[in-house]
Amino acid sequence: MKSEIIVIGDELLIGQVIDTNSKWMASELNKQGWEVTRITTISDGGDDIKEAISSAFSRVDVVLMTGGLGPTSDDVTKPVLCNYFGGKMIFDQSVYEQNMRYFAGRGLQMNESTRRQAEVPDVCTVIPNPVGTAPIMWFEQGTKVLVAMPGVPHEMRVAMKGDVLHRLRRHYGDHDAILHRTLMVFRNTESGLSERLADFEQELPSCVKLAYLPIPGVVRLRLTARGDDEALLLKILDEMVEKLHTILREDIFCDEDTTLAGALGNILKQKGLTVATAESCTGGNIAHEITAIAGSSAYFNGSVIAYSNNVKQRVLGVPEEMLAQYGAVSRPVVEAMVAGVMQLAGTTCAIATSGIAGPDGGTSEKPVGTVWIAVGIGNKIISECAHFAGSRTYIIERATQRALMMLIDLLLSHH
Amino acid sequence: MKSEIIVIGDELLIGQVIDTNSKWMASELNKQGWEVTRITTISDGGDDIKEAISSAFSRVDVVLMTGGLGPTSDDVTKPVLCNYFGGKMIFDQSVYEQNMRYFAGRGLQMNESTRRQAEVPDVCTVIPNPVGTAPIMWFEQGTKVLVAMPGVPHEMRVAMKGDVLHRLRRHYGDHDAILHRTLMVFRNTESGLSERLADFEQELPSCVKLAYLPIPGVVRLRLTARGDDEALLLKILDEMVEKLHTILREDIFCDEDTTLAGALGNILKQKGLTVATAESCTGGNIAHEITAIAGSSAYFNGSVIAYSNNVKQRVLGVPEEMLAQYGAVSRPVVEAMVAGVMQLAGTTCAIATSGIAGPDGGTSEKPVGTVWIAVGIGNKIISECAHFAGSRTYIIERATQRALMMLIDLLLSHH
Repeated sequence: MKSEIIVIGDELLIGQVIDTNSKWMASELNKQGWEVTRITTISDGGDDIKEAISSAFSRVDVVLMTGGLGPTSDDVTKPVLCNYFGGKMIFDQSVYEQNMRYFAGRGLQMNESTRRQAEVPDVCTVIPNPVGTAPIMWFEQGTKVLVAMPGVPHEMRVAMKGDVLHRLRRHYGDHDAILHRTLMVFRNTESGLSERLADFEQELPSCVKLAYLPIPGVVRLRLTARGDDEALLLKILDEMVEKLHTILREDIFCDEDTTLAGALGNILKQKGLTVATAESCTGGNIAHEITAIAGSSAYFNGSVIAYSNNVKQRVLGVPEEMLAQYGAVSRPVVEAMVAGVMQLAGTTCAIATSGIAGPDGGTSEKPVGTVWIAVGIGNKIISECAHFAGSRTYIIERATQRALMMLIDLLLSHH
Repeated sequence: MKSEIIVIGDELLIGQVIDTNSKWMASELNKQGWEVTRITTISDGGDDIKEAISSAFSRVDVVLMTGGLGPTSDDVTKPVLCNYFGGKMIFDQSVYEQNMRYFAGRGLQMNESTRRQAEVPDVCTVIPNPVGTAPIMWFEQGTKVLVAMPGVPHEMRVAMKGDVLHRLRRHYGDHDAILHRTLMVFRNTESGLSERLADFEQELPSCVKLAYLPIPGVVRLRLTARGDDEALLLKILDEMVEKLHTILREDIFCDEDTTLAGALGNILKQKGLTVATAESCTGGNIAHEITAIAGSSAYFNGSVIAYSNNVKQRVLGVPEEMLAQYGAVSRPVVEAMVAGVMQLAGTTCAIATSGIAGPDGGTSEKPVGTVWIAVGIGNKIISECAHFAGSRTYIIERATQRALMMLIDLLLSHH
C-alpha cells in the first residue's frame, strides 16, 4: 500500500524546527509493509493545504497529515479539511468533555480557544487523543483515506500506535510484506564498497534491492525484500546477509540497524566489558549517545565532562604540569583522561576527547576542529589527532562518531 | 522570492534518516529574505524526480535540490536532470582533476564509480564542491533556476554558504526583506497566551504576522515583518516587542530565538554565575545541550554522569546509606548530587537528575518516566518529581528541558 505524508507548519518552512514526525511515521508504516512515496511540507495556508491534498490523492489512496491543529489563530487546517470533504463544523460534546478532564487533571482552566478544539467537521470519524486536546480526524472519500493528527510528536506517536495504524490495516486488508536487513560496514568508502559488491548486486534476486547509506566512516548496507511470502523473503534475506559476510568479513562490525553507540553496546555486552567517558570538547555528547541506548546501564558506568582544566585536574587526576606543558588539547592529556576516568568509574574501557569545537578558541597551531581522541581497554590506550571542518555542532558530532568508531575498532582488533 | 526544496532519498522515505538539510536551507534562505513555500521529499526514482521538478516549477521559479548524487548505482538524479533540461552527459575534466586531488589528499584511490562523479550534464553550470566529490549543478530555463546539491549535510552547507546563495541573489536581484523576532515565554499555555494577546493581534500592522510555536513548558512567539523598507520594519518590530514586554512582563524569559540551554547561558553570563551538572537518567544530555552553545566554556565547568551508584557515591559524595534508604531516584539523592557537583566543579549553580528512562527498570512505585530533578544556586536547592510518558529518547529529552527550565526559573526568581 502506498501512502504520502503531508506535514503542515510555517515553523518548518522558515527552518525554525526540524520535522522528526515524518521520519518516525515513515519508519512505522514501513514496518507494517506500507510504503511512503512522498513527504510534502507546506504552510498553514488554506490553499496550500487543499492543493497538497488533491495532488497527493492523485497519486495515492492514503494521506497522513500532521500539524496545523493547535488552538491558536494561525491554525486553519480543520476548517479547510471540513470544506475539502464537503462537511460543516459541529461541536463534539465527547471531545469537549475529554478535554475538560484533560485540563482538570493538569489543574488548568479551559478558555475560548481550548473550547474550539472540540469543533470538528461532521464528515470525519473522531479518534480520541488520550495525551492532548487536538482531536484526531479520519476522513474517507471513495477508496481514499486521510488522517489528520496533531504536530506535537508525542501526540502523533500515541495516535499512530494506539489507533491509526490499526484502523489503516483493517480498512485496506492484507498487503505485501516489506522486510529490511541492515549491515554496518567500516574501513571502506561507499565507492570502494560498490566495486567490491558489483557481482553481488548483479546476482541479486529481483525481489531484493540494495542501498548504500553512508555516514562519515561508516556505510550502512540496506537490503529490502518485497513480496507476499514473508517466510521466503526472510530466507532470501538470510542468504544475502550470509553472502555479504563472506565478501566483506571483518569489515562488517554490526548486523543491525543501530547507531555507532548501539553497535559499541552490542560488542561491550558480548565481551562483558564496561565503559566510561571523559569528555572535554564533546561536552557529554558521547555519554548521551551511549545512554540513548536502552539497557546501556549494563555496560556504562558514568562520565566526567571536564570542560575546565580545574575539573580535568581535580576529578580526572590530569597533572597540572602536563596541562601547562602540552596544553589541554594534546595526546598526553587525552591519554591521562582515559586512564583517569577508567580508574574513577571502575570500568574496563574508556573514551576521552579534548579539542576545539569553535567558533572561537582556535590558534594557528591548533585550529578550530582539532580534536585529540583517546580510547582504551585496560592498559592498551590508543589516541589520534583528528581535524574536522564545520560548525560547532558538526565538529562535536563528528568527534563523537569518530571516538565511538575508534573504540569499536580497538575492541574488534583486541583478541 | 519564493522557492521550493526537493529532498531526494529512499532512506528518508523509509524513515531511516532524519532530514536536517531542509531546515537548515530554509533558515538560511529566510535570513536573506527568500521564502520557502514547500519542501518535497521523494525517492531516488527518475519519474518521481521529474514530476516533482515540473510540479515545483509550476508554482515557483527557484528549486533547490539535495541528495541523489552519490557515486553508487542507487543514484539516478544526474541523468534525470540532464534529460529534463534537454542536455547530454559529458566528462568534466576539471571536476575529475579536483576529485583526484581530493582523493589523493586523503590517501585514497579513485575507481570507476568515483570517476563517474566527473560526468555532468552539458546544460548546467558546474559549481565546484570543495569538501566532497559530487559536483554542484546550476540549471537555468527561462526565468527558472534549479540547483542540485549533494545530500551530505556538510557538503550542502558549504555549497550554499560558499556560492549558491550568492549566485541566487545576483541572479534575481533585489527583493523584499523578511525580518523575524522571537520571544520565549514560560508560565503560560499556548491557548492562555492567545487570549492574553487577542487585542495585540487585532492591532498588528498588516506587514507583521504573529505565530505561536509551543514546546513543552515554553511558547515561542515569532513576529515576522515583510516589506521593502528594512529600517521601517525594524522600527515596527521593536515597537511590537516592546508592547509584548508590557503585556507579558516576567513571563518573557528570553528575547532571542535560541534553545533553553542558550537562554540559560544568557542569564548565567548576565549574572556572572557558573553551572555544572550531575546526571543520571539524562546521561549527559543536559551537558550536551549546554555545551552546544558557542562560548559556554565561560559559564560551564563540567559534569559528572553518574549512571552507577558507585559513581554517585565515589565521585559525587552521595552517602551510601542515603542511596540504600531512599533509592537513587529520590529527592535526597538528587539534592545531594546538586550539592556534590557544585562543590566538585566549583560552580555557583548546578542541575541534577535521577530517574527511570526505560523501557525497563520501572516499578509500580516509580514507573518508567519518573524523574527527580534538582537545581541549585549556592545553598538554595529546589527539587521536583516529574513524570513523563513516552519513549526513552522522549523521557530524556523532556527531563533535560524541564531541568533547564527549572534553573532558569530559579535564577529569574532569585534577586
